[in-house]
Amino acid sequence: MKLLRYGLPGREAPGVLDAQGQIRDISSLTRDVDGAFLASDAFRTLQKTDLSQLPVVSGQPRLGPCVGAIGKFVCIGLNYADHAEESGMPIPAEPVVFNKWTSAIVGPNDDVKIPRGSEKTDWEVELGVVIGKTASYIEEADAYDYVAGYCVVNDVSERAYQIERGGTWDKGKGCDTFGPTGPWLVTKDEVPDPHNLKLWLEVDGKRYQNGNTSTMIFNVPQIVAYLSRFMTLNPGDVISTGTPPGVGMGIKPQPVYLRAGQTMRLGIDGLGEQQQKVVAA
Amino acid sequence: MKLLRYGLPGREAPGVLDAQGQIRDISSLTRDVDGAFLASDAFRTLQKTDLSQLPVVSGQPRLGPCVGAIGKFVCIGLNYADHAEESGMPIPAEPVVFNKWTSAIVGPNDDVKIPRGSEKTDWEVELGVVIGKTASYIEEADAYDYVAGYCVVNDVSERAYQIERGGTWDKGKGCDTFGPTGPWLVTKDEVPDPHNLKLWLEVDGKRYQNGNTSTMIFNVPQIVAYLSRFMTLNPGDVISTGTPPGVGMGIKPQPVYLRAGQTMRLGIDGLGEQQQKVVAA
Repeated sequence: MKLLRYGLPGREAPGVLDAQGQIRDISSLTRDVDGAFLASDAFRTLQKTDLSQLPVVSGQPRLGPCVGAIGKFVCIGLNYADHAEESGMPIPAEPVVFNKWTSAIVGPNDDVKIPRGSEKTDWEVELGVVIGKTASYIEEADAYDYVAGYCVVNDVSERAYQIERGGTWDKGKGCDTFGPTGPWLVTKDEVPDPHNLKLWLEVDGKRYQNGNTSTMIFNVPQIVAYLSRFMTLNPGDVISTGTPPGVGMGIKPQPVYLRAGQTMRLGIDGLGEQQQKVVAA
Repeated sequence: MKLLRYGLPGREAPGVLDAQGQIRDISSLTRDVDGAFLASDAFRTLQKTDLSQLPVVSGQPRLGPCVGAIGKFVCIGLNYADHAEESGMPIPAEPVVFNKWTSAIVGPNDDVKIPRGSEKTDWEVELGVVIGKTASYIEEADAYDYVAGYCVVNDVSERAYQIERGGTWDKGKGCDTFGPTGPWLVTKDEVPDPHNLKLWLEVDGKRYQNGNTSTMIFNVPQIVAYLSRFMTLNPGDVISTGTPPGVGMGIKPQPVYLRAGQTMRLGIDGLGEQQQKVVAA
């Protein structure tokens, strides 16, 4: 099932994509696609519902982030060995954890804003994991029980803010619009193996990233169980699991960064595509 | 005015402390003390209200975090020169920014849980700044317009997770219960100079921290304006502005860390006190 949110920013309505690619209105079941819904009986009711019985949403509304009211947006760094290498960073012995400020989260096709004065805004296609059930000190073997599904994330990053401006990476990871999320929350039953998905990203039609989640260092159950020892994961929290090689910072002999007017397109097998115009803040 | 939230965890009601130290019920004006309220006309109405006209709350209810539905809990690191020195870290050229996961936020007198297996859980009394108005690319000279008020924060930290486990500080800053916040959100009109406040912390009656916000490296307007260039600050966001010397990690010849059964007490001039029992998770 492909859950989504459509409408104006901050006022999105809940929906689901049917087999014909039409949006169906699920507002009779829930006010939002958020953590409360994912943990509710209404979600289970929806999973048993004949979608053709739900009202069709006409037109081509804007899509919002596929999860509403995200409480935590937890990111894993350097989780593809070849990306760690291109970044000049050691392969981590345990997951590198950082934060994307929730005010950075936008819809999959919203504009990405280059912060004022920024010269090193970069892209990162990533597999997002959406938590469906409260997880604290859980075991790897049980981790999938706590996962609602998956989505595409563009972990947009300002490399100077992230690396050259002192302190943690958080300074360069959570600028406004740096977290396009969606188009859909694809429930886990439609993703039998999250560790064999192609993921790719293009800028103005040129392909820069061309990876596969099979080369992750820490896999989804390992990450979810690991994080649950450092914080309680709540329904609706999103974990972005790291990016494969091909980011702008790693390009030789000169890094390549985003410029206003460019367009990013990115996607993951079965999870849909995003497209963002790059604009000045 | 001292705003507060009282009642069971997750079900707190909004209140205000009157001059006699009684809690007055403000649920006729708002559902919660949260960002929406701080940005609303209801908040301005309350500020003109004769508190003696509001119902008294009887008994001694638990206090929750003094702000509800906190969207971002932004922390500034090494913001007191002498604390940077005791931590063996250089004095930062610009603010060090990190994150406390919002799931870590608890009431001022709730238990603090030592994570399983943790041996280096530490304390940090800090001045919290509560945002009252949406701030993006603002100037230092205007920064107070965006501040609703102040509160006490205990930036509880697990030093091994923060420093020795790879990646950013975030791993050791946002464990469950690591963010006691309150007792009150003291509105800025009651805090004419946030840069001349004594702040202190004791463990089992022994005073470890004894500082003054006058020795901050970056002051409140500088921090608010600085952060607003890296993210939009929203009403109800909290910024914790760093800790003075005296943390457990800095004690010579041996660091001192928290043990289950101990009690922390901490406070800031005019902003009230917190008291937490330390327990095993």
